[in-house]
Amino acid sequence: MDSAASEVLARDLLQGIRRDVDAALDAYLPAGEEVPGSIHEAMRYSVLAPGKRIRPALLLLAAEALGVPREEALPAACSLEFIHAFSLIHDDLPAMDDDDLRRGRPTNHKRFGEAVAILAGDALCALAFEVIARETRAAALVPRLVAILGEAVGTRGMIGGQVLDLQGEEMAPDLELVREIHHRKTAALIRAACRMAAVLGEADPVVTKALDSYGEAVGMAFQAVDDLLDETSTEEAMGKKTHKDRSRGKQTFPACAGLESTRAAAQELVEQAIRAIRGPLERTEALESLALYVVARIS
Amino acid sequence: MDSAASEVLARDLLQGIRRDVDAALDAYLPAGEEVPGSIHEAMRYSVLAPGKRIRPALLLLAAEALGVPREEALPAACSLEFIHAFSLIHDDLPAMDDDDLRRGRPTNHKRFGEAVAILAGDALCALAFEVIARETRAAALVPRLVAILGEAVGTRGMIGGQVLDLQGEEMAPDLELVREIHHRKTAALIRAACRMAAVLGEADPVVTKALDSYGEAVGMAFQAVDDLLDETSTEEAMGKKTHKDRSRGKQTFPACAGLESTRAAAQELVEQAIRAIRGPLERTEALESLALYVVARIS
Repeated sequence: MDSAASEVLARDLLQGIRRDVDAALDAYLPAGEEVPGSIHEAMRYSVLAPGKRIRPALLLLAAEALGVPREEALPAACSLEFIHAFSLIHDDLPAMDDDDLRRGRPTNHKRFGEAVAILAGDALCALAFEVIARETRAAALVPRLVAILGEAVGTRGMIGGQVLDLQGEEMAPDLELVREIHHRKTAALIRAACRMAAVLGEADPVVTKALDSYGEAVGMAFQAVDDLLDETSTEEAMGKKTHKDRSRGKQTFPACAGLESTRAAAQELVEQAIRAIRGPLERTEALESLALYVVARIS
Repeated sequence: MDSAASEVLARDLLQGIRRDVDAALDAYLPAGEEVPGSIHEAMRYSVLAPGKRIRPALLLLAAEALGVPREEALPAACSLEFIHAFSLIHDDLPAMDDDDLRRGRPTNHKRFGEAVAILAGDALCALAFEVIARETRAAALVPRLVAILGEAVGTRGMIGGQVLDLQGEEMAPDLELVREIHHRKTAALIRAACRMAAVLGEADPVVTKALDSYGEAVGMAFQAVDDLLDETSTEEAMGKKTHKDRSRGKQTFPACAGLESTRAAAQELVEQAIRAIRGPLERTEALESLALYVVARIS
């Protein structure tokens, strides 16, 4: 499959997934009118905002590659989107990255105030775990799914990465530190998508390890691309402020290695991701196209 | 048993429980030295601060009343303390109640900065669910434990109560609103302690309902006592600022009904709690003494 065909496939897959995921997110979220209204509106505002749903898509496509029907994987897939939205709301707060714009709209605290934004993030964090526990049909898998998500969210994953990211603003560019930040802040949740899929598909250790490697490489590629786009894209195209990493002294791939090396590294990571699953998995087409899609944004 | 004997029993029980719970909390928390250090220190600072461990105690004593050994209930018990600490850290933030003092020490954000405090609360929320999933020996009970905790934390429980509490500052005192705030903000987590104990003890519906009623009444009494102490106690005795509810226009029992009626209501709630479990449960001594202990602080 050539790269143009692959991109078409990825777009088709993502469109279908987005429809199913958004319907499930909507069903799992409390109604906007339910008391107290403001927080439910705030949760829905960020979760249902336009977005690519990359994390749910990875989980669903990896699960489907293992023969798991989509509806059985939807609760775990949605839990990742709840966590992702929670992390964006809190990262945008004045005490963190202090951003006013996200996905082309005011950030959650700009729209609903800081108190409600903090609490909306908190509620989405709890809801993620609750939805896995309440909605996963294969109850025996719930302990492992919750443990994987908890580890990916916590200080050894996403939240630890955010701490390192904030601390890194005070330090000189350091490629090892960039790798550690991205490994935790971005790749942990994307790896969790693959690991949860492996649990749902009751995959053997070889397949589990292959999916884990794929998730790690896709996650690192994804963040390298995000770093690049912050440097090279515009606010209109991205729906959020750009060129802000450099002004804040953020630890990024381009700050350490330059634009060209970052582009090359992202390509190489995607090839690594594809090599990891070819062989161990039988059906890899969808996951390959999704990996290629991640870097297509920069080519 | 007279009330003095009951108070001695409660103090003895709480002392033993505190030792076991603190050891488990310490074991479940990442070490303070683990990278990134600041957030692990911040988490330990708030979780291991001096405190009564009322929520874990309720869970452990209710579980023991149903024949569940303490070590099997410790993960769920500790999850409640992680959630409680997370809620205190976030409630104290400048965007919320803006408090500088908690349990006789600087609040988390005063000590570690706002960004780390927000993230430490977030990490404790995730850790609560992870610990239940990873450490509960009876894996088949994990889905129900996680679902109960998630509901108690979310917008239909504690977080929804905090939103109503903040919104209530703008309104005239209203007893129905006070009840709704306390029902969600305080009683939800205490009821969850009792409901999780019922799940761990595989209690029948009658016992489950009795424990649920006990938890609701103890939770409401606990918050009425807290409201009273804010009005009548000193900063030195409480380890936090007092007389602040009134100055903020908080919705409280005393603001609506006065001190005397609040005292009477707290006593009546504790008697309700005790009546709820006498009969349905065989061993009620420990739970009765704990309920009495809650109001002993004001007599």
